[in-house]
Amino acid sequence: MAIHTQLTTLLDIDAPIILAPMAGVAGGALAAAVTRAGGLGLIGGGYGDPAWVERQWELADGADVGIGFINWKLSEDDRALRSCLERGVKAVLLSFGDITPFASAVKSSGAKLIAQVQTLEDAKRAADAGADVIVAQGTEAGGHSGQRATLPLVPAVVDAVGNIPVVAAGGIADGRGLAAALMLGAAGVMCGSAFYPCDEALSHDHAKDSAISGKGDDTIYSGLFDMVRGLNWPSEWKIRTLSNNFSRRWADQDRALAEHLSSIAAEYRAAAPGDMQTVPTIVGEAADLLTQRRSAADTMADILLTAQALLGHPPAALT
Amino acid sequence: MAIHTQLTTLLDIDAPIILAPMAGVAGGALAAAVTRAGGLGLIGGGYGDPAWVERQWELADGADVGIGFINWKLSEDDRALRSCLERGVKAVLLSFGDITPFASAVKSSGAKLIAQVQTLEDAKRAADAGADVIVAQGTEAGGHSGQRATLPLVPAVVDAVGNIPVVAAGGIADGRGLAAALMLGAAGVMCGSAFYPCDEALSHDHAKDSAISGKGDDTIYSGLFDMVRGLNWPSEWKIRTLSNNFSRRWADQDRALAEHLSSIAAEYRAAAPGDMQTVPTIVGEAADLLTQRRSAADTMADILLTAQALLGHPPAALT
Repeated sequence: MAIHTQLTTLLDIDAPIILAPMAGVAGGALAAAVTRAGGLGLIGGGYGDPAWVERQWELADGADVGIGFINWKLSEDDRALRSCLERGVKAVLLSFGDITPFASAVKSSGAKLIAQVQTLEDAKRAADAGADVIVAQGTEAGGHSGQRATLPLVPAVVDAVGNIPVVAAGGIADGRGLAAALMLGAAGVMCGSAFYPCDEALSHDHAKDSAISGKGDDTIYSGLFDMVRGLNWPSEWKIRTLSNNFSRRWADQDRALAEHLSSIAAEYRAAAPGDMQTVPTIVGEAADLLTQRRSAADTMADILLTAQALLGHPPAALT
Repeated sequence: MAIHTQLTTLLDIDAPIILAPMAGVAGGALAAAVTRAGGLGLIGGGYGDPAWVERQWELADGADVGIGFINWKLSEDDRALRSCLERGVKAVLLSFGDITPFASAVKSSGAKLIAQVQTLEDAKRAADAGADVIVAQGTEAGGHSGQRATLPLVPAVVDAVGNIPVVAAGGIADGRGLAAALMLGAAGVMCGSAFYPCDEALSHDHAKDSAISGKGDDTIYSGLFDMVRGLNWPSEWKIRTLSNNFSRRWADQDRALAEHLSSIAAEYRAAAPGDMQTVPTIVGEAADLLTQRRSAADTMADILLTAQALLGHPPAALT
């Protein structure tokens, strides 16, 4: 079973599905599982801790995976990126900031350069900077994103970037979403929430259960969890999570937060692992579509089977 | 040329495309043009002015159109709705609030009851209240909306409402969007921005030009224009427009706005018609996809032709 597009040809894979490089969740085991099921697994290089990244490469156990990084963080410390390029890596995803300072190093290593963008203007800049693949990410995604929505962003990016394959991200967690993305002109999808509750994910067991029971109506797009984690994210990218007791308590309390941040952050840090009413469940609006804990291979097969059926037999009568 | 779904059967139409009932823009001529091109035109009954609505019925010139109303406004004055039901109308769309008080009157008149919702929870309530069709509207839509995005909302609503046909709204302005919506499980689409620059729309000439040159990156979702227009919209629904000089001047100026609202509103009201740097161009993120002023029939044909091509020959190789 395979779905071939411009993306699968470029990356030499059988399924146009990329694992979102979720920081702290997409480790080597999950990335390897997605790659072995026909897609492209990306390790969540996140904030660029070289030791953590090294350990995840070992856990990938030789599978042909890639890695994702946060641009504005790489600008402070790019050691983890450099060691990946020296090792040799199939693909590097860069998001949240200008890719120009890193583009030539990535490409000259032989890795494919995947640029994730959140606006049409940034898509044009990524194309000019030499991206091999452009991920158009909507705000309905879990984790960090911008403010545009996937459905109108994808065709606008497709129209703007010529022959560069475009991948749709944000709000896609099943085969209906994959089939829809292909209709929009995308050459594939990137999924995070769909894999968050998988067996191989590094998310806490309680986080996986919370993701499955969570509702898209209950997600929030907020800077709160970055503030209390001491992460200095630029204001144009906030983080979507399920709401919980902690987020509800501090919603619309900007002044109190600013005045008492250190004690609120200390309270946050004191939460037990798996206390999902304090720490966030980092999934997006596609939470409604998550139904069970299972292996990444089962999730991949489910997405592909549904998409193949829809593409083979469109759900409308043409006359 | 026709695309048949559960929606086209229910409404006895040839194209699964509904005109969004844009207040002040979707008058009788535009609604009639969409109906005559095979879809369902809805007059924008908006704030419920009976004389305006009466005039638009005359301009529809006998075409089989429907009408849309704002629930929280109907709760204050439902004369326009009642006169439409007495006249006999094909379909009534109700949005932004509880449909229960009006559902039985609409249905017993013989009109189809189309409920537009912005959350999964409201979709379930609309199903329980007897809606014949449910429009799942994402925040990327122009005009008023909630905060969920179309791509993940539509399949979640489809899964939740049993056999009731679901229509996708928000971010759809071409045949790629229609084909994608059908893959998500929708039985059709509702489009506003796509028709905003059409010849038959009541939008000002300058507003039509502004919509076409506008960018999805430049839309804002804000309560500003409702405040200065004196419209007391509940806070859960704000309005998406292109940004302009007026909106940029008052962005993040909540305190100044509250203190000087009457003078700011007077300045707003003093703007010349067609001064698009003061009054809003009310289109959504799909603005990127608007390319030309043309007739509604040409827009309908363009959407259908593209969607038929995509559905007939999916853009991926299945093996």
